[in-house]
Amino acid sequence: MNETIRVFAPATVANVACGFDILGFALKQPGDEVVLKKRDGKGVRILAITGDDGKLPRDVRQNTAGIAASSFLNHIEAGYGLDIELHKKMPLGSGLGSSAASAVASVVGANALFGNPLSREGLLEFAMEGERVACGAAHADNAAPALLGGFTLIRSYDPLDVISIPTPDKLFCTVIHPGIEIMTGDARKILRKDIRLKDAIVQWGNVAGLITGLMTSDYELIGRSMQDVIIEPIRSMLIPGFQDIKNAAVEAGALGCSISGSGPSVFALSRNREIAGNAGKHMAQVLRNLGVKCTLYVSKINKNGPVILSSDVR
Amino acid sequence: MNETIRVFAPATVANVACGFDILGFALKQPGDEVVLKKRDGKGVRILAITGDDGKLPRDVRQNTAGIAASSFLNHIEAGYGLDIELHKKMPLGSGLGSSAASAVASVVGANALFGNPLSREGLLEFAMEGERVACGAAHADNAAPALLGGFTLIRSYDPLDVISIPTPDKLFCTVIHPGIEIMTGDARKILRKDIRLKDAIVQWGNVAGLITGLMTSDYELIGRSMQDVIIEPIRSMLIPGFQDIKNAAVEAGALGCSISGSGPSVFALSRNREIAGNAGKHMAQVLRNLGVKCTLYVSKINKNGPVILSSDVR
Repeated sequence: MNETIRVFAPATVANVACGFDILGFALKQPGDEVVLKKRDGKGVRILAITGDDGKLPRDVRQNTAGIAASSFLNHIEAGYGLDIELHKKMPLGSGLGSSAASAVASVVGANALFGNPLSREGLLEFAMEGERVACGAAHADNAAPALLGGFTLIRSYDPLDVISIPTPDKLFCTVIHPGIEIMTGDARKILRKDIRLKDAIVQWGNVAGLITGLMTSDYELIGRSMQDVIIEPIRSMLIPGFQDIKNAAVEAGALGCSISGSGPSVFALSRNREIAGNAGKHMAQVLRNLGVKCTLYVSKINKNGPVILSSDVR
Repeated sequence: MNETIRVFAPATVANVACGFDILGFALKQPGDEVVLKKRDGKGVRILAITGDDGKLPRDVRQNTAGIAASSFLNHIEAGYGLDIELHKKMPLGSGLGSSAASAVASVVGANALFGNPLSREGLLEFAMEGERVACGAAHADNAAPALLGGFTLIRSYDPLDVISIPTPDKLFCTVIHPGIEIMTGDARKILRKDIRLKDAIVQWGNVAGLITGLMTSDYELIGRSMQDVIIEPIRSMLIPGFQDIKNAAVEAGALGCSISGSGPSVFALSRNREIAGNAGKHMAQVLRNLGVKCTLYVSKINKNGPVILSSDVR
């Protein structure tokens, strides 16, 4: 007993311009850390949460990491319980998959403590239970890339069909997080339920182009395909200076730029670290000129997903 | 002078289930043949058309092959004229890109007669001019695969962006053509201009899955992705026995089955020739049971496109 594990799970960019609700990829930084400890007894307890300014529920049944671990323990009919510490190391409500990172770190840690009875893929449904609490729906477009790393496609939810998409080795992501908060539920409510067929055709042409570009390392095609004619025009209204941030990224040489998840974070993809860094500087400058504080992240696509930072599991 | 060339251009399957207006691929058979002959003077003359039951316009300005050749000659500022014979070897209004096959054969032949001043890709705009006459809009989802061979993505029309998608070597197509005619314009009129966002998400998830499956030779994924929740439910009402034909194909082992172009032809994809042939037999039986005559084609994906059958060009 007294086995302890500390797991990192990464932030993720969902939607990826044209791929609303079906595409996402993992970043190297930021991310959340969860410490899990086996204990006698049953069930999950949350002992501590740091980095959330007291905003996250301590009640296991309302906390994404708690829910994810609980549903996993129930599934494997665990003979022990778990104590959890959740260390938020990324902003909440940022559009970077904060709740997915917590849920994924939680289930990856729990699985390891119990001798890895499930594969990484097999853990997705439990991480998605955490998402159900956080977002009101069991979305997988953050949880899947956070869990599996790299770029993932959620082809279907019924049945769940998750496919890893190969990406170029040199693909870098710039993320700028303006210091405002947008709740996913609110960002979803403002979308129209009906769209024009002709816009949908443009969108799925770009989805096909983006997938092809990623799989053939065709950076120009990736850039040409990073266009969202349906969601971005609406959600970008919630983000201060969005069009100027986007212009700044593209002028700095980024392949394309759009909203990360439901925002307010904005991401850009670039063909090397230098361009990604330079784009970030110019994107941040737009927000500073508007008097909006922001945090900047520059990261390669994270192909590995969660990392076990320390463990005393024998 | 007196240089003559005979060119075959293939039938094509556009839309490919989920990829309405953006995807298409070429078949080995059927297809059209065009004979072109240089002559003194200017402009294009259509000397003969066979295989059309007198249905196609002999007026160069209204004939797809004539328009395509004329616009090419104008572009290269040709010093000679062309005489054309068009031999239709596939049904009109079949949903197999009949007009595109004629236009493509015409421009490929004309280009060869004038020493190939343009690349295959460069000929697309002239073939599309032919499509503008036939369909009322310069679509490329038949013309591009007929011209370039293989599986093509039309990511965008403005600007035109055509991308060849690698496909598995063993992918076979079954096409069944019921003996009824549907005009593309009519099949387009019955579509709704607005669609549900949630349906569009399903569709672009499948588009992404289909592209990924094709590029990784993942036949199961190709099959799971061959679902059209937007166009097929409407257009299939024009095709007698559609759902039974589809069920017969899938029960015979085909990966998936949908409408070819705007119909009435129905196509299935299979992982080898045997399954493709067997699926065809069962698909044809459904139509025969309904008393509908049909023609069956089984063909590998045609990766090469048009073929110069004979030429006396020095």
